[in-house]
Amino acid sequence: MKSLTDYLWFEVPNRRGFVNVTNTVESLVAKSGVKDGICLVNAMHITASVYINDAEEGLLHDYDVWLEKLAPHEPVGQYHHNRTGEDNADAHLKRQIMGREVVVAITKGKLDLGPWEQIFYGEFDGRRRKRVLIKIIGE
Amino acid sequence: MKSLTDYLWFEVPNRRGFVNVTNTVESLVAKSGVKDGICLVNAMHITASVYINDAEEGLLHDYDVWLEKLAPHEPVGQYHHNRTGEDNADAHLKRQIMGREVVVAITKGKLDLGPWEQIFYGEFDGRRRKRVLIKIIGE
Amino acid sequence: MKSLTDYLWFEVPNRRGFVNVTNTVESLVAKSGVKDGICLVNAMHITASVYINDAEEGLLHDYDVWLEKLAPHEPVGQYHHNRTGEDNADAHLKRQIMGREVVVAITKGKLDLGPWEQIFYGEFDGRRRKRVLIKIIGE
Repeated sequence: MKSLTDYLWFEVPNRRGFVNVTNTVESLVAKSGVKDGICLVNAMHITASVYINDAEEGLLHDYDVWLEKLAPHEPVGQYHHNRTGEDNADAHLKRQIMGREVVVAITKGKLDLGPWEQIFYGEFDGRRRKRVLIKIIGE
Repeated sequence: MKSLTDYLWFEVPNRRGFVNVTNTVESLVAKSGVKDGICLVNAMHITASVYINDAEEGLLHDYDVWLEKLAPHEPVGQYHHNRTGEDNADAHLKRQIMGREVVVAITKGKLDLGPWEQIFYGEFDGRRRKRVLIKIIGE
Repeated sequence: MKSLTDYLWFEVPNRRGFVNVTNTVESLVAKSGVKDGICLVNAMHITASVYINDAEEGLLHDYDVWLEKLAPHEPVGQYHHNRTGEDNADAHLKRQIMGREVVVAITKGKLDLGPWEQIFYGEFDGRRRKRVLIKIIGE
């Protein structure tokens, strides 16, 4: 079994934002030498997501509006979690909808993605440094 | 390490629909010869899901009604994504709730599923050909 | 390839509840002898979740309130699934938001978790015995 472990750092300048990490993950798959296997990509912080969807600006806007409707940031006092002094309870909720991780197949040495599948880091409580983990296993 | 990669094609005749793929995946696990490992099943299109839940008609109806409430198809003009000429922004949202993929354990050569766990393909923008990927790894 | 398969049993005394299983999973990783690989943890029942987020009482309260808002238990007659004699349709919906499973990297013989990542069992239709599966593979 071959494997590769790596970590990506992010510091999104706003509270919320999306970063396309597909090319970075693809280059790590090439580096790993794995021809057939799987690639796990997960947020290591619990107010952020890794998910797969379209790299289309309008859709990223729609996600932001929609998540804010399903789990609004304000009023911050509506959430018990924010009694700890945090104001990010909504980010813990938004991240559950978008997900923590993706597991992507590796076939013939490449990410086996559909035509529009792109891997995104979704930030819901930015302006601090956070990590994403990549674990590749296979042969 | 043994592995198997395969792709299933779907063309759901309506905009939305659910297809039980458990038996198909089970037969691929048998074909792989893997006795102990994992099986990844993921939608390769970003307006569809693979998820695990109950094969009960009432529940499939409830999912459809509920997803339409959380992420309504109309008015299509409410979504920036639809300015691209698409009308499927809601499908990109619904798929995030239901998820892209499942990872299922393989034990003693079979999918290690609970008593009611069934693997479903969930379509939210049908009437076109789409694929699901299956990747099995183990020994 | 090394592997380990185990099952945890739960009987949550109320309809809904959250149980932190991080230490139990960590001890199984140690027992497996896997130094580098992945660990799948999934609910085997379709009205329960395994997810990763914060071990903070206020947040667990917020999840419960939020899920009940997005997928209310009552009136039970609003769901076709409940015509089967069940009253747990809402639990099947809540579980889709929180997710069925997590896949966690194992690095240097330990769960490779971020500083606040904790693995939880989320119960949405308790007062009955249910299982969680753990499958560890690697080297």
